[in-house]
Amino acid sequence: MADRYGTLEAGGTKMVLSVGNDRNELLEQASIPTETPDITIPKMTAWFKSRDIAALGIGTFGPVDLNPDSPTYGWITKTPKPGWGMTPLLPQMNKALGIPVKIDTDVNAAALAEWQLGAAKGLNSCLYITVGTGIGAGLVVEGKLVHGMMHPELGHMLLRPDPKDQNPVGFCPYHDGCAEGLASGPAIEKRWGRKAHELPPEHPAWELESAYLAQVCANAVCSFSPEKIILGGGVMQQKHLFPLIRKKTRELLNGYIALQQILEKIDTYIVEPGLGTKSGAIGALLLARQANK
Amino acid sequence: MADRYGTLEAGGTKMVLSVGNDRNELLEQASIPTETPDITIPKMTAWFKSRDIAALGIGTFGPVDLNPDSPTYGWITKTPKPGWGMTPLLPQMNKALGIPVKIDTDVNAAALAEWQLGAAKGLNSCLYITVGTGIGAGLVVEGKLVHGMMHPELGHMLLRPDPKDQNPVGFCPYHDGCAEGLASGPAIEKRWGRKAHELPPEHPAWELESAYLAQVCANAVCSFSPEKIILGGGVMQQKHLFPLIRKKTRELLNGYIALQQILEKIDTYIVEPGLGTKSGAIGALLLARQANK
Repeated sequence: MADRYGTLEAGGTKMVLSVGNDRNELLEQASIPTETPDITIPKMTAWFKSRDIAALGIGTFGPVDLNPDSPTYGWITKTPKPGWGMTPLLPQMNKALGIPVKIDTDVNAAALAEWQLGAAKGLNSCLYITVGTGIGAGLVVEGKLVHGMMHPELGHMLLRPDPKDQNPVGFCPYHDGCAEGLASGPAIEKRWGRKAHELPPEHPAWELESAYLAQVCANAVCSFSPEKIILGGGVMQQKHLFPLIRKKTRELLNGYIALQQILEKIDTYIVEPGLGTKSGAIGALLLARQANK
Repeated sequence: MADRYGTLEAGGTKMVLSVGNDRNELLEQASIPTETPDITIPKMTAWFKSRDIAALGIGTFGPVDLNPDSPTYGWITKTPKPGWGMTPLLPQMNKALGIPVKIDTDVNAAALAEWQLGAAKGLNSCLYITVGTGIGAGLVVEGKLVHGMMHPELGHMLLRPDPKDQNPVGFCPYHDGCAEGLASGPAIEKRWGRKAHELPPEHPAWELESAYLAQVCANAVCSFSPEKIILGGGVMQQKHLFPLIRKKTRELLNGYIALQQILEKIDTYIVEPGLGTKSGAIGALLLARQANK
């Protein structure tokens, strides 16, 4: 029998647990609310224990310590989420299940899946950006997930104010004018008094939203020049954003990056996830398979 | 006898030619003005021919085609520099000298040298930023120089205007408010009517300059989190900039990146080049040694 693997997408509101196989297929899925670790971790380990998995892959919300040499490797570190600050997530799962466990950020897992199997398959690099409760990014460069001093926190890149923006400081408690504070789902709601998915496509919110996301894309092109930019997450379910973002990215770069990917083929350069909403789960499955090697 | 290697630092105003050895020592150096390719390339090949070198490494101004699969690999592409547009620099040097030649950008060469032998020795990643006639960057991630869709063009990252800036649009012909247009050497001269090195340390130019360079550093930390940021180039000869940039980078990140490298040890995180002004030449020497393998 082929090996079966567990995958955990650890989120701030829910934990999504799956079982997958060697052919990168997801066979079964469950979701449990994220309560405090003492409640939620035993529920998760019980679910996985009854499913005979060979290894576990975790894509988690952050910040998380990803330095294998660190004494707190695999721990959720200082999060404002009640009960989760300094939680040894990987060690606890590993101890309870007695199988290899590999962990990365949720966005790095998604970037890995999109690069190996999705929109960036066959390329050397890609950037996966999620726009939802926050703005985060996973980055593959030269065929490797980037773990520098810590994982990327692209959402906190500072942006140039849009001239039409009535509130160019945004809503991040740490930074005036960072991408997350200007363009995350909660930022949209605070600006316009309605949730993103309740705003019609003709609402002025989307001109502003796409302008800021285009700036993130343009700065990414200048910073590390990924071969593909993939935009996922809840806000990007508004598909009408894609043509706006592409157009504005090209306008911002203004011919300076003289590559046909930008000038002529931007429709295939800034794209939706190839794996739809499954990038994160399949990324965690790939991590589990790596852990089992 | 140990092998000898040629190095070429190809710049817009001068070409710096050196001979180095297997121990990464530079033995001899010459400089010739950059005229048109039909004049300058034969002068360079003549110099190298008489010096019995086993291979050549080139760190060049850009834009340059670095895709080995491209028909114009190793060509200077569309530069405004008279005569140099679409110049097959690598093919011509290779043909004239009959030895292996390896090429990269000047800043990637410097980043390589600083990572292998300089300020970032022993780390997995570093960002080398040059601030001079332009602003450019070379990036090492997971132990490899980054060549994405093209080489990084960090100088054209858009920045948030400084509240005290009288001209927050800057001087880039392509972009309103990009780093190069706001903070390169020529931008300083256009703002203040004097060259950077003529402005005393107490001049208000430096508060503004350091604020913009700090923003580049802060965005780099959020984007790809290099383990070291190295600042070189002509403008950075103003050493009093370093403490200002460090302080403002920490202020901009505002505690969000809770790493001791930022919070406590930023003096050893944002640093001068470990190889002084030789990063570029030694980087080209490392490229030559790679070419000879």
